[in-house]
Amino acid sequence: VGDDARVRDVEPGRVLADLRHLAELTGGPGGSRRLAWTGEWTRAREWLGGQLGEIGLALEADEAGNLWAELPGERDEVALFGSHLDSVPAGGWLDGALGVLAALEVLRACAGTKPPRTVGLVDFADEEGARFGHSLFGSSALAGTLDAAAAAGLRDAEGRRLEDVVGEHGVRLAEAVGAARRRKRLASFLELHIEQGPVLEAEGLPVAPVRGTVGVERERAVFTGEAAHAGSTPMDRRHDAGLAAAGLARDVAEIAREAGGVGTVGAIAMQPGVATAVAGRAEALVDLRHADGEALAAMRAGVHEAAAARAEAEGCTVEHEPIWRIEPRAFDAEIVAAAREVCAAAGGRSEPLTSGALHDAAEVAPHVPTAMLFCPSIRGLSHTPEEDTAEADLLAAVAAYGALARRLIER
Amino acid sequence: VGDDARVRDVEPGRVLADLRHLAELTGGPGGSRRLAWTGEWTRAREWLGGQLGEIGLALEADEAGNLWAELPGERDEVALFGSHLDSVPAGGWLDGALGVLAALEVLRACAGTKPPRTVGLVDFADEEGARFGHSLFGSSALAGTLDAAAAAGLRDAEGRRLEDVVGEHGVRLAEAVGAARRRKRLASFLELHIEQGPVLEAEGLPVAPVRGTVGVERERAVFTGEAAHAGSTPMDRRHDAGLAAAGLARDVAEIAREAGGVGTVGAIAMQPGVATAVAGRAEALVDLRHADGEALAAMRAGVHEAAAARAEAEGCTVEHEPIWRIEPRAFDAEIVAAAREVCAAAGGRSEPLTSGALHDAAEVAPHVPTAMLFCPSIRGLSHTPEEDTAEADLLAAVAAYGALARRLIER
Repeated sequence: VGDDARVRDVEPGRVLADLRHLAELTGGPGGSRRLAWTGEWTRAREWLGGQLGEIGLALEADEAGNLWAELPGERDEVALFGSHLDSVPAGGWLDGALGVLAALEVLRACAGTKPPRTVGLVDFADEEGARFGHSLFGSSALAGTLDAAAAAGLRDAEGRRLEDVVGEHGVRLAEAVGAARRRKRLASFLELHIEQGPVLEAEGLPVAPVRGTVGVERERAVFTGEAAHAGSTPMDRRHDAGLAAAGLARDVAEIAREAGGVGTVGAIAMQPGVATAVAGRAEALVDLRHADGEALAAMRAGVHEAAAARAEAEGCTVEHEPIWRIEPRAFDAEIVAAAREVCAAAGGRSEPLTSGALHDAAEVAPHVPTAMLFCPSIRGLSHTPEEDTAEADLLAAVAAYGALARRLIER
Repeated sequence: VGDDARVRDVEPGRVLADLRHLAELTGGPGGSRRLAWTGEWTRAREWLGGQLGEIGLALEADEAGNLWAELPGERDEVALFGSHLDSVPAGGWLDGALGVLAALEVLRACAGTKPPRTVGLVDFADEEGARFGHSLFGSSALAGTLDAAAAAGLRDAEGRRLEDVVGEHGVRLAEAVGAARRRKRLASFLELHIEQGPVLEAEGLPVAPVRGTVGVERERAVFTGEAAHAGSTPMDRRHDAGLAAAGLARDVAEIAREAGGVGTVGAIAMQPGVATAVAGRAEALVDLRHADGEALAAMRAGVHEAAAARAEAEGCTVEHEPIWRIEPRAFDAEIVAAAREVCAAAGGRSEPLTSGALHDAAEVAPHVPTAMLFCPSIRGLSHTPEEDTAEADLLAAVAAYGALARRLIER
């Protein structure tokens, strides 16, 4: 390593070639097949290790199955880059893989140099949670928020326990939060990801800074009325739980619009659930998201109020079962400011987006100065084989990411 | 048989005792167990045969598995009485059985006499259709509307074919419509049944005449939008099929109220059906009923119009898949008029009800002068072990039924 060797610019075309190679290696017409804790996921990670080997670096697993690589700099503090290689079943080629392979390219751009900060890559384990329903597995271990006892008993569709399956991949679940020791050397974290939404495509912009992730309140609203014969029960003598749940679905959308957040009823389950019976019970799955914690709390209160009114109007009762929640996570103001500059310079968006989806960066953000960049998703699609981004947008986004990475490394 | 022997009054207490005996024989804490084409159903029918044997009569099966008994009168034309002994699984003790055992009591009241008309009893086979999804099996064979080819391939939950199962009970499916030959001697048909709705209980009345059965239009409204991430898709960029279906559920209720009919969305199925996704597809099960055919057609048109508007508002499309339909069936004006008199005399309702549920009588009505009487259902409940009717109401209803039966026999 010559003292005068300088960090080079990333070459976006190499990231595109790597993504295509990985898609061939672990994908097909049915989409990507990098489900966490499977042989194909392992194959993808071994291939990543091979690529790092070509620049003299090696991958190291932590207690939670996250993979790390490091290129030593003048200082011990680490400018970290990465995302996740795992995918949902029949998912897309970019979700997660883009951020890991862009990080690989940052290391390539640094190879043979001794940059001011140490440069790190991370491939977080099981971001999707598609197999056991536990999202952000590896990054929550790094954050120290992983609840190993709760996770232990989760089972996949074949009935296998999470604890046993991760054990086959060298992870002792009870010790997974040991990964948190890695946090103390981290000076920054940057993640490039597809938007998984329609905003950037609609605006015709290739890249955007992200200011944080939204808070989420996920609950089940359970209406109880009285099942009755659909033919012989007059309209004014019904206690139709399904009608109340349908009304709440409309209210959720209205409340979200007014609050400037998003709100979704993704399923309504009615019982007995047949054409010939008024529903005696109906469950609505409610998902509310907002960038602002107070606004999110107000949305939740509004939904509870609306549910009570719908229940009363139909002669039913309602209860709310919490499913999952997370507060809004703001990214680092300084890095976001730098991200705005590189995105604007690349012809992208200057005003930051708030991510409505969750990412590993949301787990890292409370502990390490963090930011993300988004590139467009065609038709907003993700978690499907149709997931795609225009080539020119991918190239522009990786270039902007590389420019921001250089700033973080050379700080 | 003495020429001067007169038809006696029915003794309602005997019907109550028979019903209780049958409930013990083929029921329990889990409800009645007289599912059609099972051993317990056969046992109930054998017991009925034994009761008829005590007054010197015998049961005879027709081509569709309906059971008939006949007490010869002066004329060959038959005043027919009956209903069905089969029940839904874990059903109530009265649905169907009440009408058969009341008919048995009419025969008992005639035993030893030679009434003006021949007096018949029928126990229709598989009214409920609970096992194969084919309601009104035996009565539709009598009516000549049974589609044997379509019924042949129906399977029960264990995968057994209707054709094979009825074959084990002596019914050759292809020949079942041969039962229609029985129609030509029928001069009238009268069926006593529980209301299976809340109207009579609310009015505190023990019995009511029924003027006919409603028409039914049953369809599946299928909305197609675009599945999208519930977090990253702004409200104004969604094509939420679930939201359109929920809106339609509200519209169906409103349209039914305005039309004076009933309308029910008993289930909404969303895809992918998870908390984290906007539904790209949603199916609403729509059941519309009205006593008037034109009003029913207008309801259906109104629902289609509403569905189109909901689809457009959410950026979706909608299609309607017909499931099943039947036109309103009016009962015989003369018998209904007589029914009003006996019900009023019994302290019951004089204004006839229209049945929102279907019954064997609806199949018989186009061919034979027909009417029904209803007695109350506590809390409107049926098809559940909780199904019940106050003892005093049962006694009053059977007495009114007996009075009307005498008029039909002595015509």
